[in-house]
Amino acid sequence: MSFSPLIRQLIDALRGLPGVGPKTAQRMALNLLERDRDVARHLAQVLESAMDGVGYCQRCRTLSETDICNICSDPRRDDNVICILQSPADVWAVEQAGGFRGRYFVLKGHLSPIDGRGPDEIGIPALLDSLTGREVAEVILATNPTVEGEATAHYIANLLKPRGIKVSRIAHGVPLGGELEFIDGGTLAHALAGRTPIL
Amino acid sequence: MSFSPLIRQLIDALRGLPGVGPKTAQRMALNLLERDRDVARHLAQVLESAMDGVGYCQRCRTLSETDICNICSDPRRDDNVICILQSPADVWAVEQAGGFRGRYFVLKGHLSPIDGRGPDEIGIPALLDSLTGREVAEVILATNPTVEGEATAHYIANLLKPRGIKVSRIAHGVPLGGELEFIDGGTLAHALAGRTPIL
Repeated sequence: MSFSPLIRQLIDALRGLPGVGPKTAQRMALNLLERDRDVARHLAQVLESAMDGVGYCQRCRTLSETDICNICSDPRRDDNVICILQSPADVWAVEQAGGFRGRYFVLKGHLSPIDGRGPDEIGIPALLDSLTGREVAEVILATNPTVEGEATAHYIANLLKPRGIKVSRIAHGVPLGGELEFIDGGTLAHALAGRTPIL
Repeated sequence: MSFSPLIRQLIDALRGLPGVGPKTAQRMALNLLERDRDVARHLAQVLESAMDGVGYCQRCRTLSETDICNICSDPRRDDNVICILQSPADVWAVEQAGGFRGRYFVLKGHLSPIDGRGPDEIGIPALLDSLTGREVAEVILATNPTVEGEATAHYIANLLKPRGIKVSRIAHGVPLGGELEFIDGGTLAHALAGRTPIL
């Protein structure tokens, strides 16, 4: 095809965005060039400044442009409960869900020995450091409900238990709004085994 | 939610891309920050240079970073046939389909009197100028098969006929690979009315 070099480059660069294939990239490029050049210039500036300005919170390790993120520096949050997550996206998800008022600690993904990702790689030593000398009533393990997430949760629980810290795991069960007949067997079995008294 | 200002800006700027909603923008932002900072920086550079460097071909009015685009400046293409289209995306589509070896002329959309888009706004005078004093065997009207595209095609046909130029319209009919039962009635009626001899 006869795209000029700059248009070709633009389409290729847009394909670097997650979930953007060749057709979408082409549509985005055309749209930006034909209608939204200021939008594109603004996006370019913001990309630059975000990539330079956003680092990681020194306390909870989530994405932050300040040394201590705004959750860690919020005095109204409960220091006694720490929720451990696999990625900054999970912090966003829990915050958007609302209701949790404690602190976070963000791992770098889950344990995956086969990929060479052991405790050091995912930040377990930093987690233990951050808990040392700190009064913590409860640690909630909110890693993903996958095999790797479960393994990571159990690994951490085994480290924290001897320290006398109360450790819990987020509940597995049927998601709200689902219909039982469409829920997979593993989830249903967990939901039954984890049943709670009513009334 | 507690996004830091730069992350908030990044998510908002990504939402400026066509077809990107809040969840997708959030996923893109996270992905770029966590994994692909160089991809993001490269995208920023390319956005800047494309927005500054890409203009319009002076001859066919498609997007081009040179005064005359590489289709117009290609000596191997047929000067006798001109295909008239509504947007640069249509040039890309026809080129990708292959088979057409003539020249193009790109309008700025279709006639839409209700939106104040008359012949001047969509570039009809420039089209007439570009045809003046030029030997043209055929003009193919390839505006969209919509009410507005049809109206635009007829308007142009009425201007060009008196000049003795052969004017044609792309065929309407059943798309390849479709199944008759799922094709809308208007398309089917056109396909029947426009039937061609076989064998």
